[in-house]
Amino acid sequence: MIANILQKPARLIVGLMSGTSLDGIDAALVRIQGRGIDSKVELLHFLSVPYEEELREKIKELCSEEHSSSPKISGMNFYLAQHWSEAVKEVVREAGLSMADIDLVSSHGQTIWHMPEADPLNPYRPKSTLQIGDLSVLSKATGILTVGDFRPADMAVGGHGAPLTPYADYIMFRHKEKGRILQNIGGIGNCASIPAGAAPEQIIAFDTGPGNMIIDQAAYELSEGRLSYDRGGEWASQGKVDEGLLGEMMKHPYLSKPPVKTTGREEFGKEYASGWIRRAVEKQLAPQDIMATFTAFTARTIAASYRDFILPGTRIDEVLVSGGGAHNAALMKMLAELLPEQKIMASDEAGVSGDAKEAVAFAVFADHYIHGVPNNLISATGADRPAVMGKLALPW
Amino acid sequence: MIANILQKPARLIVGLMSGTSLDGIDAALVRIQGRGIDSKVELLHFLSVPYEEELREKIKELCSEEHSSSPKISGMNFYLAQHWSEAVKEVVREAGLSMADIDLVSSHGQTIWHMPEADPLNPYRPKSTLQIGDLSVLSKATGILTVGDFRPADMAVGGHGAPLTPYADYIMFRHKEKGRILQNIGGIGNCASIPAGAAPEQIIAFDTGPGNMIIDQAAYELSEGRLSYDRGGEWASQGKVDEGLLGEMMKHPYLSKPPVKTTGREEFGKEYASGWIRRAVEKQLAPQDIMATFTAFTARTIAASYRDFILPGTRIDEVLVSGGGAHNAALMKMLAELLPEQKIMASDEAGVSGDAKEAVAFAVFADHYIHGVPNNLISATGADRPAVMGKLALPW
Ligand SMILES: Nc1ncnc2c1ncn2[C@@H]1O[C@H](COP(=O)(O)OP(=O)(O)OP(=O)(O)O)[C@@H](O)[C@H]1O
Ligand SMILES: Nc1ncnc2c1ncn2[C@@H]1O[C@H](COP(=O)(O)OP(=O)(O)OP(=O)(O)O)[C@@H](O)[C@H]1O
Repeated sequence: MIANILQKPARLIVGLMSGTSLDGIDAALVRIQGRGIDSKVELLHFLSVPYEEELREKIKELCSEEHSSSPKISGMNFYLAQHWSEAVKEVVREAGLSMADIDLVSSHGQTIWHMPEADPLNPYRPKSTLQIGDLSVLSKATGILTVGDFRPADMAVGGHGAPLTPYADYIMFRHKEKGRILQNIGGIGNCASIPAGAAPEQIIAFDTGPGNMIIDQAAYELSEGRLSYDRGGEWASQGKVDEGLLGEMMKHPYLSKPPVKTTGREEFGKEYASGWIRRAVEKQLAPQDIMATFTAFTARTIAASYRDFILPGTRIDEVLVSGGGAHNAALMKMLAELLPEQKIMASDEAGVSGDAKEAVAFAVFADHYIHGVPNNLISATGADRPAVMGKLALPW
Repeated sequence: MIANILQKPARLIVGLMSGTSLDGIDAALVRIQGRGIDSKVELLHFLSVPYEEELREKIKELCSEEHSSSPKISGMNFYLAQHWSEAVKEVVREAGLSMADIDLVSSHGQTIWHMPEADPLNPYRPKSTLQIGDLSVLSKATGILTVGDFRPADMAVGGHGAPLTPYADYIMFRHKEKGRILQNIGGIGNCASIPAGAAPEQIIAFDTGPGNMIIDQAAYELSEGRLSYDRGGEWASQGKVDEGLLGEMMKHPYLSKPPVKTTGREEFGKEYASGWIRRAVEKQLAPQDIMATFTAFTARTIAASYRDFILPGTRIDEVLVSGGGAHNAALMKMLAELLPEQKIMASDEAGVSGDAKEAVAFAVFADHYIHGVPNNLISATGADRPAVMGKLALPW
């Protein structure tokens, strides 16, 4: 059955992504032709199934040292895989195809821990990353060959296990004449700079810092639990940025670290956001001003990292924004003001829906796995060598 | 590279087993010829690398609801895989072979949670099982194709995910004229009855109850931490069984449940053992009498399950004991007394070292995976259908 897939000029693959924002499961049905870096990738259908509030809270527990435990992880590892299998079936059905048409499922998994550096004081805490959503459960439930859990392999060859999408960005968005930055704004923000006509080694990619994570937490706390995010950035757009507070926030040591670098909920999660919310409340800032300041923080960290680490060496013409943050108009407006020389646009305008982009990337990675072709980009992850990331579970 | 393996008449495979007793990592270097149920399995070399006390304690934390957490699991998932890669290299070196000779590594993983039944009150706790020791890390560290993490696939098709070894027992120990029970005494005790000339469907297999788990806990507590097990059963052999206490212990509801059934540290772990030790101390039993009674409990649960669930329908000539418990002379003597009509022997006498048997079994399962042949035994696990268990990580 694997041999069959290798002979096919075009493969139909469902890519699944469940991000750190915990907003739901994204499923992208993709057709891939060609092989490796010359793959031609076509998005046929996309859907996103939001998580119920209760599920979101249960997953959040697993992302915290105090509230996680083996039985919770063991249960959720199976629960999510089963849950996601429904999204696979749905995206296939909505696309008017049948499950028998599908060659592969690819699953990023749900990251519940990501430790890009070893704890120097604890030998049992080497650098590591933990994604759940069991591949065997998913594969048996869909009846389709399933590849997933990509990040550990990159870490095993010396990388940070992130960011992974720049390699797929390169395949999908490289341009002969235009220098582009692909900016994803999910829970965390991450960017990939692809100079005009670049070879893969020339890509610079790193996490810019928080994406929507702190905005979401502020929306939640300041609305006393009614809102889980600031839809369209409406709340932020009613406020005024507090430059004093913003200046303090910009001192976070992550921001001045040179790439390769990655971050996560451990650094910019709930505790971090809550701390600054308390500080803002002490300073008697109005809720809309706090929202504006937090939104500006995300915009400013993005623009500052371009200024410090990309623009000095590379001409950039376009910034293609993807991820939930592309729907935040206040954030997009701030970005445009901070980067007057670049065209700031949603990645949809360059051909692939920004919401679907990450799920599509994982479909690309699974296709590489099956062909035995390396799917990490060492200039992005800092790995010692190209490697084939992923694990394969059989459906029969 | 997978295609290459499929063409080989004989595969060299290293099977890794790290059991619930947490005594160390077992590595068996195995040659397998043939395919599926007609595989011919030959053990070339075996070694066992004990865990340091500190590592054992750290893993134990992951097996408890209170002391486990995502960062601990994430770290240990990588740590163990790296640690085990050394055992792979060592067993190959000691056998006088080179890593380039090895076709596959197979890893059971370290079970840190096993929930054979769903929690009816919590939808996020479906039945599930959680093994750690990342396959990508292991594969990249050894440079060998690695298959592992078998249990989830069986659960995904309706099984208990255990016991798995009976299928390999059938391949290795079936006998035309002799009815045999394979009894493993690891942390937990489990048996497989293979009637003379049986077809695979005729195998009855289940966990008999505690194996060494409660004996180890008693040795530890009663020696105030000096001993981690009762070597040779010497301590128990100096004591007298307290029939009153033993009778109470035999009332555990697991024992009267009919097979298919599995159990684990959740049911017969530290808490359970400590409770009975307190009870025994209240009754003013001497330490050696407590050891004798706990040892008799393991022996009695084994004999009682044969009497209730196997012997009524099947003639059994030999009981082949494997696992660490085969080295406990007091336990073996009690078993012989309780089962006068069977020959009780170490499985070594039938050709495969009892210590190595489980690690060998996982080598067999990986070979099946690569051939796409089902490797679960539905009469043992209760699964709805035969399935190919395992996940594959690539070394390059
Ligand atoms: N219409 C909208 N207006 C404002 N913000 C939005 C909107 N839609 C989504 N978002 C933001 O985007 C977030 C989800 O983003 P996305 O799905 O890209 O993240 P993710 O994939 O979970 O994260 P990551 O890529 O970091 O793993 C939401 O939590 C919210 O903050
Ligand atoms: N010489 C010995 N004398 C007595 N008991 C022994 C001896 N050697 C090992 N054991 C017992 O066997 C245990 C280890 O058994 P084994 O390696 O079969 O278990 P395991 O594989 O970890 O468990 P499981 O099969 O349940 O996962 C030790 O903890 C100890 O109780």
